[in-house]
Amino acid sequence: MTKSKKLLAATVGAAVLATGAIGAVAANAAGPAADAKTTVKADAANRNLTQSTHLTIAAATKAAQSALDAAAKEGQKVSVAVVDRDGNTVVTLRGDGAGPQSSSSAEKKAFTAVSWNAPTSALMGRLSKTPNLKDIPGTLFLPGGAPVQAKGAPIAAVGVAGAPSGDLDEKFAQAGVAALNG
Amino acid sequence: MTKSKKLLAATVGAAVLATGAIGAVAANAAGPAADAKTTVKADAANRNLTQSTHLTIAAATKAAQSALDAAAKEGQKVSVAVVDRDGNTVVTLRGDGAGPQSSSSAEKKAFTAVSWNAPTSALMGRLSKTPNLKDIPGTLFLPGGAPVQAKGAPIAAVGVAGAPSGDLDEKFAQAGVAALNG
Amino acid sequence: MTKSKKLLAATVGAAVLATGAIGAVAANAAGPAADAKTTVKADAANRNLTQSTHLTIAAATKAAQSALDAAAKEGQKVSVAVVDRDGNTVVTLRGDGAGPQSSSSAEKKAFTAVSWNAPTSALMGRLSKTPNLKDIPGTLFLPGGAPVQAKGAPIAAVGVAGAPSGDLDEKFAQAGVAALNG
Amino acid sequence: MTKSKKLLAATVGAAVLATGAIGAVAANAAGPAADAKTTVKADAANRNLTQSTHLTIAAATKAAQSALDAAAKEGQKVSVAVVDRDGNTVVTLRGDGAGPQSSSSAEKKAFTAVSWNAPTSALMGRLSKTPNLKDIPGTLFLPGGAPVQAKGAPIAAVGVAGAPSGDLDEKFAQAGVAALNG
Amino acid sequence: MTKSKKLLAATVGAAVLATGAIGAVAANAAGPAADAKTTVKADAANRNLTQSTHLTIAAATKAAQSALDAAAKEGQKVSVAVVDRDGNTVVTLRGDGAGPQSSSSAEKKAFTAVSWNAPTSALMGRLSKTPNLKDIPGTLFLPGGAPVQAKGAPIAAVGVAGAPSGDLDEKFAQAGVAALNG
Amino acid sequence: MTKSKKLLAATVGAAVLATGAIGAVAANAAGPAADAKTTVKADAANRNLTQSTHLTIAAATKAAQSALDAAAKEGQKVSVAVVDRDGNTVVTLRGDGAGPQSSSSAEKKAFTAVSWNAPTSALMGRLSKTPNLKDIPGTLFLPGGAPVQAKGAPIAAVGVAGAPSGDLDEKFAQAGVAALNG
Amino acid sequence: MTKSKKLLAATVGAAVLATGAIGAVAANAAGPAADAKTTVKADAANRNLTQSTHLTIAAATKAAQSALDAAAKEGQKVSVAVVDRDGNTVVTLRGDGAGPQSSSSAEKKAFTAVSWNAPTSALMGRLSKTPNLKDIPGTLFLPGGAPVQAKGAPIAAVGVAGAPSGDLDEKFAQAGVAALNG
Amino acid sequence: MTKSKKLLAATVGAAVLATGAIGAVAANAAGPAADAKTTVKADAANRNLTQSTHLTIAAATKAAQSALDAAAKEGQKVSVAVVDRDGNTVVTLRGDGAGPQSSSSAEKKAFTAVSWNAPTSALMGRLSKTPNLKDIPGTLFLPGGAPVQAKGAPIAAVGVAGAPSGDLDEKFAQAGVAALNG
Repeated sequence: MTKSKKLLAATVGAAVLATGAIGAVAANAAGPAADAKTTVKADAANRNLTQSTHLTIAAATKAAQSALDAAAKEGQKVSVAVVDRDGNTVVTLRGDGAGPQSSSSAEKKAFTAVSWNAPTSALMGRLSKTPNLKDIPGTLFLPGGAPVQAKGAPIAAVGVAGAPSGDLDEKFAQAGVAALNG
Repeated sequence: MTKSKKLLAATVGAAVLATGAIGAVAANAAGPAADAKTTVKADAANRNLTQSTHLTIAAATKAAQSALDAAAKEGQKVSVAVVDRDGNTVVTLRGDGAGPQSSSSAEKKAFTAVSWNAPTSALMGRLSKTPNLKDIPGTLFLPGGAPVQAKGAPIAAVGVAGAPSGDLDEKFAQAGVAALNG
Repeated sequence: MTKSKKLLAATVGAAVLATGAIGAVAANAAGPAADAKTTVKADAANRNLTQSTHLTIAAATKAAQSALDAAAKEGQKVSVAVVDRDGNTVVTLRGDGAGPQSSSSAEKKAFTAVSWNAPTSALMGRLSKTPNLKDIPGTLFLPGGAPVQAKGAPIAAVGVAGAPSGDLDEKFAQAGVAALNG
Repeated sequence: MTKSKKLLAATVGAAVLATGAIGAVAANAAGPAADAKTTVKADAANRNLTQSTHLTIAAATKAAQSALDAAAKEGQKVSVAVVDRDGNTVVTLRGDGAGPQSSSSAEKKAFTAVSWNAPTSALMGRLSKTPNLKDIPGTLFLPGGAPVQAKGAPIAAVGVAGAPSGDLDEKFAQAGVAALNG
Repeated sequence: MTKSKKLLAATVGAAVLATGAIGAVAANAAGPAADAKTTVKADAANRNLTQSTHLTIAAATKAAQSALDAAAKEGQKVSVAVVDRDGNTVVTLRGDGAGPQSSSSAEKKAFTAVSWNAPTSALMGRLSKTPNLKDIPGTLFLPGGAPVQAKGAPIAAVGVAGAPSGDLDEKFAQAGVAALNG
Repeated sequence: MTKSKKLLAATVGAAVLATGAIGAVAANAAGPAADAKTTVKADAANRNLTQSTHLTIAAATKAAQSALDAAAKEGQKVSVAVVDRDGNTVVTLRGDGAGPQSSSSAEKKAFTAVSWNAPTSALMGRLSKTPNLKDIPGTLFLPGGAPVQAKGAPIAAVGVAGAPSGDLDEKFAQAGVAALNG
Repeated sequence: MTKSKKLLAATVGAAVLATGAIGAVAANAAGPAADAKTTVKADAANRNLTQSTHLTIAAATKAAQSALDAAAKEGQKVSVAVVDRDGNTVVTLRGDGAGPQSSSSAEKKAFTAVSWNAPTSALMGRLSKTPNLKDIPGTLFLPGGAPVQAKGAPIAAVGVAGAPSGDLDEKFAQAGVAALNG
Repeated sequence: MTKSKKLLAATVGAAVLATGAIGAVAANAAGPAADAKTTVKADAANRNLTQSTHLTIAAATKAAQSALDAAAKEGQKVSVAVVDRDGNTVVTLRGDGAGPQSSSSAEKKAFTAVSWNAPTSALMGRLSKTPNLKDIPGTLFLPGGAPVQAKGAPIAAVGVAGAPSGDLDEKFAQAGVAALNG
């Protein structure tokens, strides 16, 4: 092992300890047990690796639940989704009595918010200049998506759908994000 | 800002510096410019965040290219794919003259290898005990997928398809992984 | 309004009060506000209506969270899904570090369990007699799905995937179901 | 079993008797026989359950047939669909000589009507304010969908497509809904 | 117009009158009104045309309803589908309390029965000799599909799914077909 | 067998003879051999049957080839498709050097033309009044689709795509239709 | 322009003249007219280019038609497809009265034959050693696909489906290929 | 073998030598070994064959990498795709930190550029006249796609997505194309 590799290992370990998070870097991270005999090892030099930041599932669930609670307080029936920066869906909650269109809408709003690092309500201006943005697969340009940022960069987003107006949807999505700062 | 939040920021910054990687955590990371006014800020407490490790696109491309080169040296026409631990496809290369079935096969083999943290050739034993594993969406249980590991955990995989045998495919995939240790 | 219609209304109201649940029957249940002018009314005679029983989103979330917690206690990284009797997905949680194959697997296991009103581990016998059952869209015949029953009938199911064995997955799924009896 | 659980059972039973409906709550409701040995029981506390109201298949078929008959009386060739509040398709009828575009159109109109609890003709105003609503998956904003309501809340919708105008389609859809009050 | 064209027109007209059916050949058959000005006319010579036989929607609905009734008489909860010889779905009925897997299963069983002009229960022998038949898109090789024949040729099929055994499903499907001879 | 059934058989037979077409009604029409033992017979009463008119594959191929030839005469590279009244694709020809977007475009234009029984160029007026028509699945509202009619009713359509303008595409599509009258 | 580029242009031109084929290399090949102003030119060095060999659409149509004729001579109702070496479908013909499963089957058989450069009937041996080959997307391992070769390499394949046995299907597919040598 | 066939073989061989490319025409081109016994030979007459020009995978990778490098120089996070003239994706690179919407966008922009043989920025004028062009499957009408031409004809395209503006995306795409002339 080269020195730079050792440094990486130490650094990653430190970060892991400091954040209290374990993530995919931890030993034994693979879900199913690995048949290790022929496994190619690649504890690669640090020039090959990059880190990305995610909400823990606990945090993502808290955000989603908080959005749902905010809607319930106002008697609104909604669905909620949280997606990460890579567009993977992390949490979905289909609220009691929410319309059948709300699940996929919530997911797409979150996808849109994390893609542009902006609340979906703030993207309408962009759309008026470049209407075909809305043809990008996975997007939905309706208010109700709110990005989660770490140091200014998007790491996730909360999407809400099903309330009578997109403004309400987005208010609830932002309540979900705000819960992460509580 | 609470003290724990400050600690997180410092820790993440340290990790970023130490690895020399920037990733999605960096300022201004969002592809398109953000309409920032209404953005909800969530430089959240460290208990909310986790890090995941990825190959840089440069490293992933090097691995894919190396797999393709290894096949070319033996006169084999193949396609290659690299997927990350979350199952997102990072690189695809459709080799000259490779059969039309090779592109999706390479991608699915890589997906399978990263899911089980094992070369796909080593998964046949598991399959004989639990044949329905192969019904899981996105998987393909044929030799030719090789995981990339950091500290024993899977962070990516290389998949190769198109050679006359799966053993050859996997040999080339492992050449791709090995290039990361070069 | 006929007498039987009145009875229905009263009965439904009573059921709603008794369970403390509101569901889609409540006034104003429609997510978005209705443009009511031309709405066709159909407070139909009771012979036209049937009721189905669902987990509340709170209960479904509790079950999913409990399954995830049970896995975490054993150091396993999994994803969890809850589907209702109609096959609609109600909750999904993608666990920290769980493999990319786990999300769809969890969902399909839950779908399978609620379809046959049995833990998926108990369906292997059926499959040996009728192997093509596994070609039915939406199903996955791997241990890890556990039905939720009310009075013996299936109303939902919890699915778990990502642990090194299906037996573990199912143990966690059953922990999720058990939490509903807590 | 706790006292609250007993109360629930009694209450649900009462509702079932009173409505004359059986639904998924009834014993033995599972389509295929359950392999019961390892089944996890969850006759859960009432705080965990909610009821939703559906058309019986008999009622949904009557509505669909009535819509088709209304079209036939005017010499129009249409297709008809009925979806429930969760967006599940309950009945489809592809009318003699109806165009190939009519089947999916009818289904999507019904989905749209039940999602917004309004006839699709009444949704055009909403669309002029929020045009991107029509990008929500599963929707089609053309006249021809009519919601079925119980106590004001949407429980299903009838969709019709294939007539020379959307107004005609919607007239037939409303005839289908009206048949439930006959 | 050549003589053979005239003959065709007369013959087709005669068939239409004789069967009392109108079908797509009738004037004004197009669902939506045609903007006729630039329409290319092609009342083509008979050598260009062929006829195919279909169940009327009334007959297909009767068959589906009869299958559902047969299941109800035995207390079974099933879904039913009718497809025509071209594989187009003509009727679907999702029965009260039928499992969520039953809808697509019924449709695929009907597709399989009409493709091979045989009850799906009778296709198991073929499958043992040629197992990959079951990889053909749209098929499902489980008992429960029964063809409808006119003069020995398949014109439609009824599919049933959701009962505890495929034998029961097929019994109900055959009851649906038998209703056409009533 | 009742008298009306006998009449039907005679009538259908007569139509078949008169048109010289065989279609799906002929004996032995099923592609694969039927395992006949348990086949349910349903030589149903005439009230259950309807006929639909199709182009023979020979005619459809001639139309498609003629459209392609018309394009070649003008040095245009296009793809061509023929669909029947039920929306099933009967012929596709991907022309030498035609753009990759042309195949699906040709198919969708044909689908659109047969659905509205009008050349797609003539549908622009309808679209200006009802813009959401273009959200109907399977449709494409661009010139280049031309219906084939028998006695005024649509029985098929030819779609062409890939020329520098939609007007050219439609000219070639109409040449395809015209070949049926040659 | 460098010397190697000039050589390439000459060589390609020569090949084009010699074969009498024009293909996508010809001037003005783009279907729709190009808006050329900002077009980036890349008459690239020969080290950047490779040629692939395809059937002309005329040849592919002849092969497909010949396969269909061979089936008709034996009274068999089939569908036929031709795909090129890249897996793109070039021709499809849905035969009169062919089962609804035949279209996609023919296409997949052709895809399989061109992928392995062998008749699909000859691939059964491979499958017995490596059964999961049949899980590769786009493939169907049933007799009825026959490759078209130029100088031993696969350039296309003909697929046939719908006859009572795969052997018949493949006989017709081979008749289609043979027509290219006529 | 006729004389014209011999000429073809010679010519193709010459072209292959001259370009230094091997492609699918070479002997042994099939990825997996062919079971040759029953293979139908079709070294067909030259009137049956046409050639198409492609970027080598090496060239396509160079173009993609150059586009990614150009973006990195300006601190932009993007994804890149290269598609060939037939619409097949040859290379994809998902850049570090690029938004999740960028992968499919890049691919669709490349598809659009190669379909119309023009930079996607130059297609906006066409779209204002024919807005429904954007409904063609696979297309995305946003700047960022640039065609690669050989002798004026499109043979491939580079697509880039993820930068704050489409103009930037297209600048990087053109840098990728320019690298082929370096």
